[in-house]
Amino acid sequence: MHTLELTKPDGRSLTLYSRRPLPSELRAPSPFPRPLEAQPHLRWHPLRAEWVTYATYRQDRPFLPPVAYNPLAPTVDPAAPTEVPDGDWDVAVFDNRFPSLSLGADLAPELIVPTAPATGKCEVVVYSRDATASLGRLPLAHIELLIEVWGERTQRIAQAGPIEYVLPFENRGAEVGVTLHHPHGQIYAYRNTPPVPKRMLDVALDYYAAHGRGPLAELIQGEIKASVRMLYAGEHAVAFIPVCARYPYEVWIAPIAPVDSFSALLPVQRADLARAMKTVLLKYDGLWQRPFPYLMAWYQAPTDGRSHPECHLHAELYPPYRTRDKLKYLAGTEIAAGFFAMDALPENKAQELQQVKVDIDGP
Amino acid sequence: MHTLELTKPDGRSLTLYSRRPLPSELRAPSPFPRPLEAQPHLRWHPLRAEWVTYATYRQDRPFLPPVAYNPLAPTVDPAAPTEVPDGDWDVAVFDNRFPSLSLGADLAPELIVPTAPATGKCEVVVYSRDATASLGRLPLAHIELLIEVWGERTQRIAQAGPIEYVLPFENRGAEVGVTLHHPHGQIYAYRNTPPVPKRMLDVALDYYAAHGRGPLAELIQGEIKASVRMLYAGEHAVAFIPVCARYPYEVWIAPIAPVDSFSALLPVQRADLARAMKTVLLKYDGLWQRPFPYLMAWYQAPTDGRSHPECHLHAELYPPYRTRDKLKYLAGTEIAAGFFAMDALPENKAQELQQVKVDIDGP
Repeated sequence: MHTLELTKPDGRSLTLYSRRPLPSELRAPSPFPRPLEAQPHLRWHPLRAEWVTYATYRQDRPFLPPVAYNPLAPTVDPAAPTEVPDGDWDVAVFDNRFPSLSLGADLAPELIVPTAPATGKCEVVVYSRDATASLGRLPLAHIELLIEVWGERTQRIAQAGPIEYVLPFENRGAEVGVTLHHPHGQIYAYRNTPPVPKRMLDVALDYYAAHGRGPLAELIQGEIKASVRMLYAGEHAVAFIPVCARYPYEVWIAPIAPVDSFSALLPVQRADLARAMKTVLLKYDGLWQRPFPYLMAWYQAPTDGRSHPECHLHAELYPPYRTRDKLKYLAGTEIAAGFFAMDALPENKAQELQQVKVDIDGP
Repeated sequence: MHTLELTKPDGRSLTLYSRRPLPSELRAPSPFPRPLEAQPHLRWHPLRAEWVTYATYRQDRPFLPPVAYNPLAPTVDPAAPTEVPDGDWDVAVFDNRFPSLSLGADLAPELIVPTAPATGKCEVVVYSRDATASLGRLPLAHIELLIEVWGERTQRIAQAGPIEYVLPFENRGAEVGVTLHHPHGQIYAYRNTPPVPKRMLDVALDYYAAHGRGPLAELIQGEIKASVRMLYAGEHAVAFIPVCARYPYEVWIAPIAPVDSFSALLPVQRADLARAMKTVLLKYDGLWQRPFPYLMAWYQAPTDGRSHPECHLHAELYPPYRTRDKLKYLAGTEIAAGFFAMDALPENKAQELQQVKVDIDGP
């Protein structure tokens, strides 16, 4: 993997990643002439004991802009700069111009609850120079590179400031509120491990203490044996609709061995994860012969410098549809109680996806 | 409050509530000729340590049916029975025909994770006989009655089976997936306190142990003093956008004193809660002069027979809009991390709602 670190005219950083050497004369463009003084702040939610972040300039961010201008496409006209340069890169990562969290934050208002600067980092990960591409249709080697980038970013961000948790994720499709359709994801880096990963880590730690292995390692063995919900069973990686899916087309992707983070993956594991991911994403798009929206999040160990044998790197994908033309709305019981109600069985949804034939080794 | 308990031809229960005596000759209709053998089951989610419920028949429930047929309107044509009879009732409560949880559940499949019958209860609460009404436009006395009904149901359900937590909620608007537009809410009764109330109870218990009062009682005092986010400040009840709002138009409604459940409310507190609720709902609808969608959930103490001085009855309302024409999508950081990012300040959103004038004592 070749990398080139650049700084935008407005002070934000941009890193280009490629499978080929990158010419050092590439320059980082920006659609914005001036630096943005990002001062997001946190407020303490005393009933849930969690932080909420407030970044008021975020309302100015683009919202389904005209198709003519795509800030994530390579800059071709210097008079209309985008976020990334033209050149032979595969993946580009840059600081979000409208971050919910910032390493530069150092102000917080005085209020009736505890407040703090919203320390953290929000990055945009451009998956490809091609605006019409999609993650699933990228070549396997390109997807492998992206997995390597997620690992590199995690380590890089953890070194850059007081960051305890790094979460790469992708929102795909207008149904989940995506405003830019160029294939891309995001990385949120938090000062403290946020509620959901925290809960999963606590649960895994207890389970590990009692059983000598993590709950996901255990579940994966069960899913492989049961086989009815499997979508991809490779030598090193698997993808399946979990027996306890909370969304009809929920899929988990993981290395079979309990690797705790991206940077701990062996090359063969990374390659098989890419195959698992490509399989799932092509099945999604193939199911109804149209782009399949989803939220994909990659959970890994906290970047707290400690060992996490209980932790098992994996992705959870939550598509918003329950059938071809019906959305699954999160409402009363899901949002207010945190108790999920499913009207489809994971076994049946897995069967639907199993029947979608895909060719991950094709061009 | 007058009540009349009835049984539908398909075995489900229906209870009518009225401020006036109810004629005992009323009969309970049902659109369904046969009983439904509801056998929802739970599966254990080993990574989150929580239950998920599966009820596959729920896919058959109505989805935006033609306006001609409204199953929540009083039956006028005996050949086309609805869920409720014609008659002088104010509020009707009946068993959901497609429950996610059932007291009759006694089966669960054997799987690779623990499973259990999905014990619980799902009820539909019809707020009014008038299909064109809305909760906010009901007379204050009618809203008071509804609050009394929520208390009565909580007690009744807790006596009917092994129920630890009763959650009344309302999903309003197509934006949150509502399929029937007749004004109504739901009640979910859980065998075990579900994740979100559980988290709030644990947090409140710790806070109470340390400070001798609950976190909401403390916050309410702060909000009253700060006053900038208040929407209703009565003698016994308040409504405000909390300083730590996770949704732009999030509102909390609560008695000022830490009453732990509906049934513990004094009549003056109930009356003031009705005023607070009506104020908020009319402000919502007045803001953009159109019905304002929301999820409203009422949190109270578990029905575990124990005393809960840490617990403070209150409603949380989550509207899906962030501006007049933009929805707030829950995506990566909210859903995957449980960490909410806001692009509006509660103080500014409160100001918008403060400026909407309403007349809660009007006809």
